[in-house]
Amino acid sequence: MAVCTVYTIPTTTHLGSFNQNKQVFFYNNKSFNYNKRSSSNNILTSSRPYVITCSAGDSQTVVIGLAADSGCGKSTFMRRLTSVFGGAAEPPKGGNPDSNTLISDTTTVICLDDFHSLDRTGRKEKGVTALDPRANDFDLMYEQVKALKEGKPVDKPIYNHVSGLLDPPELIQPPKILVIEGLHPMYDARVRELLDFSIYLDISNEVKFAWKIQRDMKERGHSLESIKASIEARKPDFDAYIDPQKQYADVVIEVLPTQLIPDDDEGKVLRVKMIQKEGVKYFNPVYLFDEGSTISWIPCGRKLTCSYPGIKFSYGPDTFYDNEVTVVEMDGQFDRLDELIYVESHLSNLSTKFYGEVTQQMLKHQEFPGSNNGTGFFQTIIGLKIRDLFEQIVANRAAAPAAAAKA
Amino acid sequence: MAVCTVYTIPTTTHLGSFNQNKQVFFYNNKSFNYNKRSSSNNILTSSRPYVITCSAGDSQTVVIGLAADSGCGKSTFMRRLTSVFGGAAEPPKGGNPDSNTLISDTTTVICLDDFHSLDRTGRKEKGVTALDPRANDFDLMYEQVKALKEGKPVDKPIYNHVSGLLDPPELIQPPKILVIEGLHPMYDARVRELLDFSIYLDISNEVKFAWKIQRDMKERGHSLESIKASIEARKPDFDAYIDPQKQYADVVIEVLPTQLIPDDDEGKVLRVKMIQKEGVKYFNPVYLFDEGSTISWIPCGRKLTCSYPGIKFSYGPDTFYDNEVTVVEMDGQFDRLDELIYVESHLSNLSTKFYGEVTQQMLKHQEFPGSNNGTGFFQTIIGLKIRDLFEQIVANRAAAPAAAAKA
Repeated sequence: MAVCTVYTIPTTTHLGSFNQNKQVFFYNNKSFNYNKRSSSNNILTSSRPYVITCSAGDSQTVVIGLAADSGCGKSTFMRRLTSVFGGAAEPPKGGNPDSNTLISDTTTVICLDDFHSLDRTGRKEKGVTALDPRANDFDLMYEQVKALKEGKPVDKPIYNHVSGLLDPPELIQPPKILVIEGLHPMYDARVRELLDFSIYLDISNEVKFAWKIQRDMKERGHSLESIKASIEARKPDFDAYIDPQKQYADVVIEVLPTQLIPDDDEGKVLRVKMIQKEGVKYFNPVYLFDEGSTISWIPCGRKLTCSYPGIKFSYGPDTFYDNEVTVVEMDGQFDRLDELIYVESHLSNLSTKFYGEVTQQMLKHQEFPGSNNGTGFFQTIIGLKIRDLFEQIVANRAAAPAAAAKA
Repeated sequence: MAVCTVYTIPTTTHLGSFNQNKQVFFYNNKSFNYNKRSSSNNILTSSRPYVITCSAGDSQTVVIGLAADSGCGKSTFMRRLTSVFGGAAEPPKGGNPDSNTLISDTTTVICLDDFHSLDRTGRKEKGVTALDPRANDFDLMYEQVKALKEGKPVDKPIYNHVSGLLDPPELIQPPKILVIEGLHPMYDARVRELLDFSIYLDISNEVKFAWKIQRDMKERGHSLESIKASIEARKPDFDAYIDPQKQYADVVIEVLPTQLIPDDDEGKVLRVKMIQKEGVKYFNPVYLFDEGSTISWIPCGRKLTCSYPGIKFSYGPDTFYDNEVTVVEMDGQFDRLDELIYVESHLSNLSTKFYGEVTQQMLKHQEFPGSNNGTGFFQTIIGLKIRDLFEQIVANRAAAPAAAAKA
């Protein structure tokens, strides 16, 4: 049973503030279906003067933040995450074809670019980049994420990446899991507070550069100078507004050049670090062999043969922005299935539901970028950790009223 | 039941060859006690004209070779080994007080210096060192080790380290386990063939030097120059005759300077490598975490705290003199019991009979040199591996006639 509220709102706003004309009623949220509202419930027949929000205890949304620069594999990460829950993520049906939102049975992923307060022209006029907080509406971001977390649908704006304009808003229903992904999920303290779990995807400058060379120079014919200039131009704002969010992340995935090939600058073989914060509720860091010690491991040897340059794992405690963290690092890449399952079988706290689940997930999406290295491997593991976190939160909520009833 | 043989031999020889006047009779080797021979069996009452040998299938002696330079902790190693079998090793009762032999219930340790063919004066006259094969009687060594292996007692010479002379021989009974320790247990191919297991204790020049500085300079007042000169003088023969035996050893224990303290030259903190040959019958190399892979492990961390400079283990496959080997390395030293048991609990194939047996053995002999580092740790482990090897050989022998009877 969910406690739902009907708001009367002006159709033109983004539902930035909606504390007026509140009406509360009760609704069974299992039979609740927003798409059917016009036919099944006449109080909601008007085109969009009202919105139903369900701020019920047992339907509260778990909110995950994913920070990363644009084009750093966030969408692959999201597809891996939703796959763990069994469904495929798709854009909202029948809506704006340029919507940035992805919806699956359990998970809704919204792109924080939708909270740009300045469109492309506006940014140009004011001389600010999209990375600059002044180009983003954190008040609205906070209000809408808060509303969704409390089980209330919102009319979220859409930033059209094709036109560079702000399109009319789309209705977002509170999902079981809301992922907010983009440049600033942990920038605003109020938004940060709403996050149940946060991830920062950190691509090192060397790897970014190698990737851009590959894509923009070799595939699109840009010059080396123009690539360098575009990276340099972006750097001050990136360092000022994006990078510092790392310190708040529960997990940072760092993508670095390999150390297995001396002086490698191709960026094809990657070294990926999963930096896991200690003491995060519902999250037990993954470890290798012996929890709390420092280990390096080359699995390739007598039992497992690997092609050059092989695979190397490192594991150990560390500090990161004054926080205690546990780091698992993978350098190199998988060639074959047996390597993947061998590695998986030696890691602990993976939050799998059966032996080999990480490998199964990786195989299911072999075509995704990073499926043969640490990026795909750790993204899949984080997907499993988020499922575990979600299930613990739900179980905990279910247990709390039962305990209260007993007392 | 053992098949025993009475030989008539001249009292003056070392029993180098004794294939004359053979008489065979049967004797229950459980009630056999050589010390009682004069009172209990009149055919053996004469002072030493006869010797009983028991070359029975089920009483065949297991022979272990231990090679090392003089003063490199062989006697500590031997005390650790005999302790694993439960008894203390002592010199033969009532014999030459300068005997080099140690006897316990299961194990007899003989020192290969007893096979010097030249005494101190003789070596000086001929200008050869004790390391030189020309100063040693390998024919006699072979014959006597072979005789003991076949269950036959021998009259072994004694090299008196105090006087530098060859003393009259002592009677050695075939034990369950015979350890031949000294400079050349693997030098002669015939002797080598008799070994069921072999160990080379290899102290690196840096550590030897640091130890000699400590002992000869600080404690005995020798000059640095004289220490250097004595090491240099020994080196050519050592390199020519002792060092090459490494290649034949089933296990090499290498004692090296620590890598945990930059530029350490004190030789107090040690890095010890246990290089285990692959494919040795009845011997499964010890491994860390994941057999066949390459691992480094710093156990000190969140669960275990260690004082400076800590402890570091390394493990992995390697090749050594063209042989496949498995190396376990320990750098650093134990401060406390919990460190020892923690480390022990993460190693596999230790051949212990109960949880914590390595630690128990180490604690039992805390006063022995090397009890807080890899020398004592690996010596204890090798003691356990030898017990396991011995038990497997015995079990195999017991199974063989039973299988033959069934067929």
